[in-house]
Amino acid sequence: MLSRISTYFPALLLSLLPAIGAETPPRIEDIKGKTILLFTPHPDDDAFCCGGTLALLAKNGNTIRIVIYTNDDKGSYDLEMTGERLARIRKAEEEEGNRILGIPKENLLWLGHHDGLLEYVDSRRLVEQATEVIRRYRPDIVMTVDPGSDYVRWHKTDHRMAAMNTLDAIRAAEFHLYFPNQRLQLGLEPWKVPAMMFFYVTEKDANMWVNIDPVKQQKEAAGLAHVSQWEPAMHKYRPDWTPEDKEKARAELHTIILKKGGHWMEAFRWATEFNQY
Amino acid sequence: MLSRISTYFPALLLSLLPAIGAETPPRIEDIKGKTILLFTPHPDDDAFCCGGTLALLAKNGNTIRIVIYTNDDKGSYDLEMTGERLARIRKAEEEEGNRILGIPKENLLWLGHHDGLLEYVDSRRLVEQATEVIRRYRPDIVMTVDPGSDYVRWHKTDHRMAAMNTLDAIRAAEFHLYFPNQRLQLGLEPWKVPAMMFFYVTEKDANMWVNIDPVKQQKEAAGLAHVSQWEPAMHKYRPDWTPEDKEKARAELHTIILKKGGHWMEAFRWATEFNQY
Amino acid sequence: MLSRISTYFPALLLSLLPAIGAETPPRIEDIKGKTILLFTPHPDDDAFCCGGTLALLAKNGNTIRIVIYTNDDKGSYDLEMTGERLARIRKAEEEEGNRILGIPKENLLWLGHHDGLLEYVDSRRLVEQATEVIRRYRPDIVMTVDPGSDYVRWHKTDHRMAAMNTLDAIRAAEFHLYFPNQRLQLGLEPWKVPAMMFFYVTEKDANMWVNIDPVKQQKEAAGLAHVSQWEPAMHKYRPDWTPEDKEKARAELHTIILKKGGHWMEAFRWATEFNQY
Amino acid sequence: MLSRISTYFPALLLSLLPAIGAETPPRIEDIKGKTILLFTPHPDDDAFCCGGTLALLAKNGNTIRIVIYTNDDKGSYDLEMTGERLARIRKAEEEEGNRILGIPKENLLWLGHHDGLLEYVDSRRLVEQATEVIRRYRPDIVMTVDPGSDYVRWHKTDHRMAAMNTLDAIRAAEFHLYFPNQRLQLGLEPWKVPAMMFFYVTEKDANMWVNIDPVKQQKEAAGLAHVSQWEPAMHKYRPDWTPEDKEKARAELHTIILKKGGHWMEAFRWATEFNQY
Amino acid sequence: MLSRISTYFPALLLSLLPAIGAETPPRIEDIKGKTILLFTPHPDDDAFCCGGTLALLAKNGNTIRIVIYTNDDKGSYDLEMTGERLARIRKAEEEEGNRILGIPKENLLWLGHHDGLLEYVDSRRLVEQATEVIRRYRPDIVMTVDPGSDYVRWHKTDHRMAAMNTLDAIRAAEFHLYFPNQRLQLGLEPWKVPAMMFFYVTEKDANMWVNIDPVKQQKEAAGLAHVSQWEPAMHKYRPDWTPEDKEKARAELHTIILKKGGHWMEAFRWATEFNQY
Amino acid sequence: MLSRISTYFPALLLSLLPAIGAETPPRIEDIKGKTILLFTPHPDDDAFCCGGTLALLAKNGNTIRIVIYTNDDKGSYDLEMTGERLARIRKAEEEEGNRILGIPKENLLWLGHHDGLLEYVDSRRLVEQATEVIRRYRPDIVMTVDPGSDYVRWHKTDHRMAAMNTLDAIRAAEFHLYFPNQRLQLGLEPWKVPAMMFFYVTEKDANMWVNIDPVKQQKEAAGLAHVSQWEPAMHKYRPDWTPEDKEKARAELHTIILKKGGHWMEAFRWATEFNQY
Repeated sequence: MLSRISTYFPALLLSLLPAIGAETPPRIEDIKGKTILLFTPHPDDDAFCCGGTLALLAKNGNTIRIVIYTNDDKGSYDLEMTGERLARIRKAEEEEGNRILGIPKENLLWLGHHDGLLEYVDSRRLVEQATEVIRRYRPDIVMTVDPGSDYVRWHKTDHRMAAMNTLDAIRAAEFHLYFPNQRLQLGLEPWKVPAMMFFYVTEKDANMWVNIDPVKQQKEAAGLAHVSQWEPAMHKYRPDWTPEDKEKARAELHTIILKKGGHWMEAFRWATEFNQY
Repeated sequence: MLSRISTYFPALLLSLLPAIGAETPPRIEDIKGKTILLFTPHPDDDAFCCGGTLALLAKNGNTIRIVIYTNDDKGSYDLEMTGERLARIRKAEEEEGNRILGIPKENLLWLGHHDGLLEYVDSRRLVEQATEVIRRYRPDIVMTVDPGSDYVRWHKTDHRMAAMNTLDAIRAAEFHLYFPNQRLQLGLEPWKVPAMMFFYVTEKDANMWVNIDPVKQQKEAAGLAHVSQWEPAMHKYRPDWTPEDKEKARAELHTIILKKGGHWMEAFRWATEFNQY
Repeated sequence: MLSRISTYFPALLLSLLPAIGAETPPRIEDIKGKTILLFTPHPDDDAFCCGGTLALLAKNGNTIRIVIYTNDDKGSYDLEMTGERLARIRKAEEEEGNRILGIPKENLLWLGHHDGLLEYVDSRRLVEQATEVIRRYRPDIVMTVDPGSDYVRWHKTDHRMAAMNTLDAIRAAEFHLYFPNQRLQLGLEPWKVPAMMFFYVTEKDANMWVNIDPVKQQKEAAGLAHVSQWEPAMHKYRPDWTPEDKEKARAELHTIILKKGGHWMEAFRWATEFNQY
Repeated sequence: MLSRISTYFPALLLSLLPAIGAETPPRIEDIKGKTILLFTPHPDDDAFCCGGTLALLAKNGNTIRIVIYTNDDKGSYDLEMTGERLARIRKAEEEEGNRILGIPKENLLWLGHHDGLLEYVDSRRLVEQATEVIRRYRPDIVMTVDPGSDYVRWHKTDHRMAAMNTLDAIRAAEFHLYFPNQRLQLGLEPWKVPAMMFFYVTEKDANMWVNIDPVKQQKEAAGLAHVSQWEPAMHKYRPDWTPEDKEKARAELHTIILKKGGHWMEAFRWATEFNQY
Repeated sequence: MLSRISTYFPALLLSLLPAIGAETPPRIEDIKGKTILLFTPHPDDDAFCCGGTLALLAKNGNTIRIVIYTNDDKGSYDLEMTGERLARIRKAEEEEGNRILGIPKENLLWLGHHDGLLEYVDSRRLVEQATEVIRRYRPDIVMTVDPGSDYVRWHKTDHRMAAMNTLDAIRAAEFHLYFPNQRLQLGLEPWKVPAMMFFYVTEKDANMWVNIDPVKQQKEAAGLAHVSQWEPAMHKYRPDWTPEDKEKARAELHTIILKKGGHWMEAFRWATEFNQY
Repeated sequence: MLSRISTYFPALLLSLLPAIGAETPPRIEDIKGKTILLFTPHPDDDAFCCGGTLALLAKNGNTIRIVIYTNDDKGSYDLEMTGERLARIRKAEEEEGNRILGIPKENLLWLGHHDGLLEYVDSRRLVEQATEVIRRYRPDIVMTVDPGSDYVRWHKTDHRMAAMNTLDAIRAAEFHLYFPNQRLQLGLEPWKVPAMMFFYVTEKDANMWVNIDPVKQQKEAAGLAHVSQWEPAMHKYRPDWTPEDKEKARAELHTIILKKGGHWMEAFRWATEFNQY
């Protein structure tokens, strides 16, 4: 019952009642045999945000599908690069990165929008698209960017749009009267997403910490599979590494992976209602 | 004079000067014979956010008009329900709820947009619509959702859109050069809204607390008039209650009404400038 | 290298790593011979936010260009005023104000959108426009409104839109694959903006304070050049002042200029990455 | 029955069956006590297209309402003119012109869009607006621009948009499932328009010719009431005429009024189905 | 070679060269084992325009797929009807009608847009959708509404939009650089549609006449399967017929089926280039 | 005076008065020292439609500027091609083609929209862009695609959009109240285009025939400069010709150039009012 209330009275809950927030997040090793749907703005955010967690989840027999909003076809300094070629490169890198984590390329769904321009697509249609995906795969957990309170300044455009749009779709998926043609014509029933894991959280919002020590190697390898996102390929594309370049990239990657209590970590906000705080 | 300044230098005021914030909010019993315009995203937010306050205001001889952005035609789990029927049901519930609070149905203005999709209408036109309403009724107080600092995560879409759009309209209504055809062709003069009461506030933003003990019954009855928003009608619509269902709903409603110092309360942010903090 | 990281992992940096924030802002007197591009929502925000700083920068031999998003054609209570006449008046005032600060009118670029309606223009095109300007002038420093965490409530519409749009353009300008026709057909190469000075900051975000005592007179004169923004011209336009009106306006202006340690100040957030906090 | 068929099988009717076209148009003097709704792109097209016919219809006791899509605020060569002033002038001229024809200014409905830019407004909303007007006034005859086969080259934008939009609204008005909130929330029932008179027809499409000899003076006077549409006011606005200017304008007006068999005429296409040819 | 030319120089071909028009259309009985894709604006246009031809084609072992732009959820005079219910009814009728013609319901693709509002959807996205369908099924023949020269007046909105959009998609499908993500991410190769059969042609444009005498019964039965499109169900819905009503509908249907030389006919414009006349 | 009338009463003129059409078109050799502005949908339409005429005009000392709406980045069957590379190739070809005709590349203005997608850009903005160009160059003659009565079927999208948009801009350019910021802020005065030459005309609309025998070679060479528009480069790009391929292309080109009375010709519709027939 409370679940319905928090849907209808979020403001009151948020501000003026004792916090009833999320139930305790589960331990990662207890998540087994589930369907997990991750919505990522670009084909590399999934590896960088949660490569370790994904590897653990894959190992545990969960089915993971990755929905990729954009094709990441803009972020290169190489003046010889074209957008269409970059999209091809990044698709291959994303497939390789996920292969390393244990996710087959058949489980990648590309929505195909342009990098950096997600805010300019027809947003009503974007929600409809994401709603259809949710109703089709009926995930136990949806992972996506946290639409956090500090997000505004730093993840404008694609990240924010991905966060907001996925949440909107989670809500719409629950009620058959949103996009009713999906039920009538595609045979897709409404689906209430039971739990969410938000990534790219601020420290004050994180409530779930995953120790990724056991899959450190995989996370590292998946991160480095995105060759074109690192120097020197960023300025002059090449599909492979010299050992020196790779070592440098690895070192840089290490500096940005979260450590806590001597362990490698990934942080999330776990929630069981789409508007839970 | 200061009023003009805060219009033009909000950032400076906000950040770098001694707070000049709002004047002290009035006591609810001192608001008499006023015209009050409440903009609500859905036909039930008004009852839940401020049913008690509205009952008190109505009793005090104020004229209250409710502008309802959407027709709330999506939020049902009943697979037999259609959107158009749900809109009819919720219109009747809203009329009944407001009758209980002392507001006749002639005072309800329906803008008729779809539930959950307010962000996707032509936003320029939406501001124009709300501006016209303000210039027509020339309210002493506008009530609407607070576009508060924490609002982003939890009241996406309709709530946020209602908050922002109403504020935009309040500003536009003041200057005849916005939508000048309203003056030329509809004979509507510009109108500066003297005061605002924002609902769905966060605790840190609330600066006006209304004791609603005297109208507890009315608030409760108005809330329960929205039968379709409660179980069991949410999952399988029925227009009436069994006594047991009603009791359960009432109990649930009690848990979400704010209490403070032994009293039932409703909280607001009172402001006299549209960009006052 | 770190620069690239902060581009790609803003969330991690922001939340979960030791702050690596901006390098120390330079002293204003050390900024010489630079190209500075200021994006302002209206033709008066530049004078009010940073008139003193601009005067100092102009004196130091920097080239300053002002890009003005809107023509400020709405904000008058004078019922005889028309929007087109108001736009003409404000253009002349902006030219005069900047002349006083040492910026010739050839350095003003007008984008010509309507006041208060910037959110309703084609936003993809607006980013493209700003990107073109950045690539054309290749500024050492971009100045614009801070898309700060508290901005939502108080600078809706033009201010927020100007802040977000300029940041988007800064990012797009860096990668040739955004709006590639600008390189192909206009011969404009990508440009990475090395530093930003954000104005209209909140106190907690300001990290750069400029003492404007030496140019107090200029700031004051530039502010008062915007005659139509002050009473009595606001309610009944007249192009000139009585000595009394001018004195009153000057007094009011003094109350809103920031003082700190006995000095007149202007505050900024200095950053060297577009998503630095 | 046939009416339904022509609604559903227009193509077959149009191309491959014996023409079943419109029934014989009525004589103008037989139209009495009817409600007539004229949709005009600009506040002068009504006088020029059908001033004589309107005068006859008014005389016959019909209630005529004029819906004016735009405010005609662009068409002046006078460099001192502003758009808002021009809109005011043209509103007054339209009221005067219609007063002469016997239509009180209360019967004018201004939709207030900008001259020449009607194609750029939200077209879904424009249909909704026109549909509401039709359902509210339940006209026996709708008059509007003919969306004729040759229209493309010569009446681009406002004229074409007015023609198409009005027809769309005529169709939508008939079925309650278009814009159902108009029935639910505004209490407006669906309305099937029984007959249409299209003006600005090509010769081959005209099927109804009205002899306007008896109201020649009124047509002329109404045409000349639009002072700002004629020289010299077109190049340098003045609200009045010299006798010479007026004479010249009158002469020019005479050359463009249709004559047939020694009579002054106005031509129309009469139809009883919205897609009748 | 010529094929390329007519793509690039349509205007010259059309106007100023000896007509090179389409090659002779094939006889219907020679079309065997082909893939046929029919784009229809509503779920009934296919039966009425070409039910006989479809029955013949199905009999000949062709695979026929029907793409239905809208769900036909507006066209009822029954005030008890809701849009969502009407969409369900029309889906069932379309499935039944096509079953009679020999097309299984698995071969129906619903795009799910609202009846009468197809012009207001994101048209860029609509072309993308249709392009994807063409590339996926790689049809030998596409059937759709003819964007004929007389179309403007009588089939505004859905019919025109369907005609134009399908042609746009046919062109886009041919070049991999339109919507390149369909190739990259969905694995769909470009596809050049070899032939088109346009229906709802004007008499002067028809160049292919199909004798449907052998499948008269089927055409009739398919037409009458659309119960809700006929009286009395149009005004008061009922799912079944009285024998009298059915007889009346059948008689009416007969009057609108084309006869020529004593035979029942369906007429088309056959073309082998998308811009062939 | 008549000029004004035809602006205001096009329908009457078109249909119901003796034709007053265009004055006699000038002879091509009498057009000297003029400014000519040609708006072309793609960078090759100018060569194919009017290469001979352009060569003659250039020879006569006219200043010719070409405005190119799209970058032609879609039309290749070469699966290795990317859109951005194709845009580069076509820019170079257009420059070479025009060099041959006597038009320097400084006189080419690229608007940079995507091929085949011109209908999906913000059309209000597109008119504004074209209006600015007209006001800046103040042409004696504008050349563009004819928005002819038969245009609908065959030059959907870019061609139609170019035709309509250019005409809209011609009208807007004449009145200072359209896009008034262009006068206020860019210093551009209104400009009435005195004459138009429409290309891609239908035979029945052509009223001006230019004998291009003297510049046959140039036209041919300019046409063949667009290597990528011909086989074999269309299917597998190569920047150069084998002699055999070139000969084949030349032969094909000859078949599509208009001949009349033993001469090579180019046909136009000359008009002196934007809505003249």
